[in-house]
Amino acid sequence: MRTVNHERFEARRRHVREAALACFKRKGFHQASMADICAEAKMSPGNLYRYYDSKEAIIAAICEEDRQGVIDGLAAIGERPNLLEAMLEMAGEALGESDAEKRKFGCEVLAEAARNEVIAEIVRRHNAAIVAICTEAIRRAQEVGQVDHALDPALAAGILVAAAEGLSTQLALGAPVDAQACRETFKLLMMRFLSPQR
Amino acid sequence: MRTVNHERFEARRRHVREAALACFKRKGFHQASMADICAEAKMSPGNLYRYYDSKEAIIAAICEEDRQGVIDGLAAIGERPNLLEAMLEMAGEALGESDAEKRKFGCEVLAEAARNEVIAEIVRRHNAAIVAICTEAIRRAQEVGQVDHALDPALAAGILVAAAEGLSTQLALGAPVDAQACRETFKLLMMRFLSPQR
Repeated sequence: MRTVNHERFEARRRHVREAALACFKRKGFHQASMADICAEAKMSPGNLYRYYDSKEAIIAAICEEDRQGVIDGLAAIGERPNLLEAMLEMAGEALGESDAEKRKFGCEVLAEAARNEVIAEIVRRHNAAIVAICTEAIRRAQEVGQVDHALDPALAAGILVAAAEGLSTQLALGAPVDAQACRETFKLLMMRFLSPQR
Repeated sequence: MRTVNHERFEARRRHVREAALACFKRKGFHQASMADICAEAKMSPGNLYRYYDSKEAIIAAICEEDRQGVIDGLAAIGERPNLLEAMLEMAGEALGESDAEKRKFGCEVLAEAARNEVIAEIVRRHNAAIVAICTEAIRRAQEVGQVDHALDPALAAGILVAAAEGLSTQLALGAPVDAQACRETFKLLMMRFLSPQR
């Protein structure tokens, strides 16, 4: 019984996040109000506030969901014999076209972060968490000789995550490039950057 | 006499762009109105519209200014004996901390581009122009054997420009990293990616 309730609660939370995303996309994060989100979700304010009490809380939850996806992806990498190859594949998937909508939302959040310190702190913490996970993957790959020991794992991870973000943004914006060729060239860049130097 | 008038006109245009940037930063691009920009610039609407007739026209002008900076930087590179080294230096400068404000504005513009196709088209054209200039620099460096011939110059340029954008965004957001170390590591990444492979 408790499980059913928990599942229903999570399903409602997901419904609110999706309604919020639709509003942020249409009106912009700054302009979309909690009232707009209630209307979109077809929920009363009293009901909606049981799930999230502010736009900031919704953003934080969306970031957390995203982070969990990266954590799951990298956990799967740990079981692969070639860590570098697995990281390249994961980068290719992260640059997939399917999340253009999410990337656009990311632009909204970044714009808001420039004006709202609460959002900026959420974004900084989110990025730091993603970079920390990737740092650990690079460090493990260094241990087994698949990544250059001379690289600082945290710096290398920070730059690759930022670079992938920048590229995703361009693809979401509809840059006139072959997305598949971009992904392959980005993987080549990662490989040349990370590989042990001869 | 014509020159003096031209200079005065250009100075007024710059004044309007600066006032607009201040408004976009404070209220967001979407919410800042032409009336807000008039108030910030201390100009009447009739006067301001002589310089720019829309927010979109201001954005386009700011992009053009930015593009000119890249063109000038790359023109200077052309005179250097080592093109790859010069490109690395230029990337380091482009990632300088000084333009954090401009970068935040860039986030605003990207957010707006997700909703406003006129802005999206300005941003796409701007990026394509920057990438085209960098493509030409890489192509010339390939001719003199300083960049790997196996790379597609346009793809390599597109990815490096996007990566640098992503990194600048992180730095502007106040990511808890050593900005100087980031710049150096990014230059190492560029060098390893672009250098002829042995």
